[in-house]
Amino acid sequence: MSTKGTLFGLGVGPGDPELLTLRAWRLICNCDVLAYPQTGDGDSLARSICAPFIPEDATELAITVPMREDREPARTAYNAAALKIARHLNQGRNVAFLCEGDPFFYGSFMYLFERVAETHKTVVVPGVSSLTASAAGIARPLAARNDVLKVLPAPLAADRLRSEIETADAIAIIKVGKHFDKIRNILRDLDLDTHAAIIEAATLEDEKISRLCDVAAGERPYFSTILIYKGAEPW
Amino acid sequence: MSTKGTLFGLGVGPGDPELLTLRAWRLICNCDVLAYPQTGDGDSLARSICAPFIPEDATELAITVPMREDREPARTAYNAAALKIARHLNQGRNVAFLCEGDPFFYGSFMYLFERVAETHKTVVVPGVSSLTASAAGIARPLAARNDVLKVLPAPLAADRLRSEIETADAIAIIKVGKHFDKIRNILRDLDLDTHAAIIEAATLEDEKISRLCDVAAGERPYFSTILIYKGAEPW
Repeated sequence: MSTKGTLFGLGVGPGDPELLTLRAWRLICNCDVLAYPQTGDGDSLARSICAPFIPEDATELAITVPMREDREPARTAYNAAALKIARHLNQGRNVAFLCEGDPFFYGSFMYLFERVAETHKTVVVPGVSSLTASAAGIARPLAARNDVLKVLPAPLAADRLRSEIETADAIAIIKVGKHFDKIRNILRDLDLDTHAAIIEAATLEDEKISRLCDVAAGERPYFSTILIYKGAEPW
Repeated sequence: MSTKGTLFGLGVGPGDPELLTLRAWRLICNCDVLAYPQTGDGDSLARSICAPFIPEDATELAITVPMREDREPARTAYNAAALKIARHLNQGRNVAFLCEGDPFFYGSFMYLFERVAETHKTVVVPGVSSLTASAAGIARPLAARNDVLKVLPAPLAADRLRSEIETADAIAIIKVGKHFDKIRNILRDLDLDTHAAIIEAATLEDEKISRLCDVAAGERPYFSTILIYKGAEPW
């Protein structure tokens, strides 16, 4: 294993720059190379979260990751990025990959980790996840005491979602996007839509929180989370 | 609602002081009153995490919470603490309650929140949870893509734990303590003990990580977490 440079998977939190950890902040100020994912349009949420702290003379490595159903272009992009990062590491430079939320909680860092960690020193710095940031935003507990908490990605089949929701005390449904109506129907059917909230753009300036029963049918942003807490009073 | 002072539920992360968020750090440096839970012996993990940043002239409010099966003494302690905190808030002082991990992720802040939030302005600052810090520690993803992730408190009945584990892709078992043998037996039975790790004192100086199949029977610390990731190679 090359020990020349270290790859840091930096959790940079859900959106508000003040939710960076002291460690992430220190590493951003001092790292040789800052890498981050960006869309085909050149937008990077991860970079924008860290923008107030990025040194003017930082070496940046933007990784353009197409968001498409077909995963092949993304795989190609991560393969190319892993090679570039390995080159920096081999030359003794530390690289920090900026990752929204937490790198190991459904994070995009995973795709670099599986390509780089076997050959180069890799350290993950945990971050505040959208999960707990969303609970803070709606001002309701996520889970307490002996609650069973489940995190369910919205693309799962309706039957699976329904049975998992029925047997949980607290539920977070992530990656809502175009699956909103499917989930809304399940929650109405289970009489849980009055115990649920949807939060969009958590901790960002355009954060939006709604009771699920107040939201019209239709698509919601991909980065939306629905939280259900059976232990709370209905809204 | 009195708007004189604000109660902040501050997530201070899993143990390493550098995993505080910039916001938690700023509030600790500037808040009028710092409250935190401590054991009957006067130990406070939450305070020790923040110790490097607590101003010398800070007003501190230690809340002694007995850790017993009988919850009545704890209820009495939180009732008394809520009254003291309300008095500070009514006199225009801001109070920050230091909470290990994240305040709404099985956090002790919940007990104050339910006593204070209806009458006083209350803001929750999310923190890094032991969940993602543990995954970073063992250097394995917690969950990815469309994985179903479940958080299961160890005191649950064996049947319930078993059925929830069988139908998940990724599992975190929290509050392990004296329930370790029960869980070890279930995981062996399901051939999952080679896919599981136990982490004690995550991110603290005495952090200890072991493959589950290497750990002898017996009690483990209360603040231990077992992570199981079915998608990974066995160790």
